Amino acid sequence: MLRHEVDIPAVKARRYKIEIGTEILGRLWPQIEADFGQHGKFVVTDENLVSAGHLEKLLGQRNIPTFIISPAGEASKNINTVVSIMEGMEKAYLGRDTVVVALGGGTVGDIAGFAASVFKRGVPVIQIPTTTVAQADSAVGGKTGVNSSISKNAFGAFWHPAAVYIDVATLTTLDDRQFRAGLVESVKHALIADSEYFGFLEENLDAIFERKAGVLEKVADFNCRIKGKVVEADPHEQNQQRILNYGHTIGHAVETASGFELLHGEAVAIGIIAAGLIEIELQLAQPDRLDRIRRILEKLGVPVKLPKDLAEDKLIDLIKHDKKAIDKWPRFVLISDIGQVHSQDGQWAVKVGQQLVEKTLRRLQR
Amino acid sequence: MLRHEVDIPAVKARRYKIEIGTEILGRLWPQIEADFGQHGKFVVTDENLVSAGHLEKLLGQRNIPTFIISPAGEASKNINTVVSIMEGMEKAYLGRDTVVVALGGGTVGDIAGFAASVFKRGVPVIQIPTTTVAQADSAVGGKTGVNSSISKNAFGAFWHPAAVYIDVATLTTLDDRQFRAGLVESVKHALIADSEYFGFLEENLDAIFERKAGVLEKVADFNCRIKGKVVEADPHEQNQQRILNYGHTIGHAVETASGFELLHGEAVAIGIIAAGLIEIELQLAQPDRLDRIRRILEKLGVPVKLPKDLAEDKLIDLIKHDKKAIDKWPRFVLISDIGQVHSQDGQWAVKVGQQLVEKTLRRLQR
Repeated sequence: MLRHEVDIPAVKARRYKIEIGTEILGRLWPQIEADFGQHGKFVVTDENLVSAGHLEKLLGQRNIPTFIISPAGEASKNINTVVSIMEGMEKAYLGRDTVVVALGGGTVGDIAGFAASVFKRGVPVIQIPTTTVAQADSAVGGKTGVNSSISKNAFGAFWHPAAVYIDVATLTTLDDRQFRAGLVESVKHALIADSEYFGFLEENLDAIFERKAGVLEKVADFNCRIKGKVVEADPHEQNQQRILNYGHTIGHAVETASGFELLHGEAVAIGIIAAGLIEIELQLAQPDRLDRIRRILEKLGVPVKLPKDLAEDKLIDLIKHDKKAIDKWPRFVLISDIGQVHSQDGQWAVKVGQQLVEKTLRRLQR
Repeated sequence: MLRHEVDIPAVKARRYKIEIGTEILGRLWPQIEADFGQHGKFVVTDENLVSAGHLEKLLGQRNIPTFIISPAGEASKNINTVVSIMEGMEKAYLGRDTVVVALGGGTVGDIAGFAASVFKRGVPVIQIPTTTVAQADSAVGGKTGVNSSISKNAFGAFWHPAAVYIDVATLTTLDDRQFRAGLVESVKHALIADSEYFGFLEENLDAIFERKAGVLEKVADFNCRIKGKVVEADPHEQNQQRILNYGHTIGHAVETASGFELLHGEAVAIGIIAAGLIEIELQLAQPDRLDRIRRILEKLGVPVKLPKDLAEDKLIDLIKHDKKAIDKWPRFVLISDIGQVHSQDGQWAVKVGQQLVEKTLRRLQR
């Protein structure tokens, strides 16, 4: 037997910037050109961004090859869209020296980021998130992917952006339901990392609903600080990044089971309440904490109960298919306090039995 | 304008082993179990491996979920196969704690490696190459991917294996055309890195054709040493790994233009002759060096001229679509001597004008 060893060298650390401002979209392209002059550019966006005028604001009169995802939303978040984007890049004779510019919500960012990660074995992506959920969560962190016919984000890659630009003015055109659902990720950030931020959200919800630039920038700032720190500590979601999954294990299952009738944030709101019920059962919380969380979610206008038509066994099956499942059952992130994730034996995701989850789902139907 | 910076930490260096032996397939599974006890296993292979009995040799009586690619070969090297594999993994309730075991030739390894790289954002892959081309080239190096409707390996990832096992006994069932075509990658290795190896191949071709275990192990050993060194120096193909592309720029175009009637190695043989003709034009070689290279390729029984029905403009268009093209024209790897790649300004891939390539293609048709 002959034996060789191949040493894969370390991949160097790198840094990317997040810029947050108001009405910055129209000034971005020259900066992208300055940073990526040698790269061909390819824009990925969706029909909502086009009709809101944001694509035009970004590109002006420039003639840049662009893929417009249609229909916008989860229905297009599949491998076929990724392939269409990549074929669009090929038809534009773009090669490895390409930068993908993702303008849009979480779906656009996830799809475009994944396409960038596998096009010619990987090209950089710039994220320009335009929704509350994308600005809070998905644009920062490097998680990209699409849904399979079986589960959410089943296919994807860790592909950190080359830069992130957040223009809170893009939120003013977002429809109210999307706007409110996306704020659930902000509530989640506060719950897992920062009780002061939770208080800020409670106090400033009205200004947020009025989409006042200053307070929206502040929200983006809190979110990026929290998310950035977690990603720096654990860029490939091996341990600490799990805390971002708070409310998501049941949330993802609910989202899929609803046939994506529920928005991501709406499903996560239900997942957060589920986590709260589990925390009470495990004596990690008194009921008053959950009441406080339920109040802010109710004020956001997102559901805090399961839709009546979701079958419990379907949800349990989806939970078993969770990406992070080990031995066909995932672990759950729970909090011990607002701003503090509960850990056990150094793990941020802990064991919760199937029976307790089933009981919780039943309580969520009432 | 608020500004954050996110520091993506370095990814640690890691090491994987390559083991080369004869008749080792039947002993591998316990070792895989020992190394990946906590992981679910999923085997990807193709119908040729099944009919040759190699899958049974690997698995014995074990009941392991397996995806059998059918038809075997380039026709299946597309995104649909990757999706089918991943859905197979999902249906087997496999999650992030899965290891993919790729048993087969270059196509199987490329497809399975790519599926592993994007399944649940990435799971490890063990490569068990069973053809001359895969054992020489594709199993080591981490390049995975599939073809688009437009070009070869258009979609993919750098995804280094967790381990590589080479059983040269699997080569005894390989059909003669595949066997010989795969040896072109060995000739390529010798040409770019090791004149002693070139001499060894010239002297031992008959023993290789008889598939004598000792000499096949020696060939695998030379190949892994050469390929391993290049990959260690440049794991993401940013510069030095380009030298492995010798003969491949025109070779890939020829392979695609032939509708994959030509095997990869056969097309690369034509590409190597093309490189040789370009080298003579650029005064990097005397004609006798190309004669020596042509002799060994002729003895391998692979083509050294373009098939008559390939249109030159089609080839030029395909070359423009090359993955490594910058500004719609790729650079070319050339050698200054057998065992020595020509470099220019520190670059291993150099500029060659379109006119010279067109002239070379015309000479290759004669």
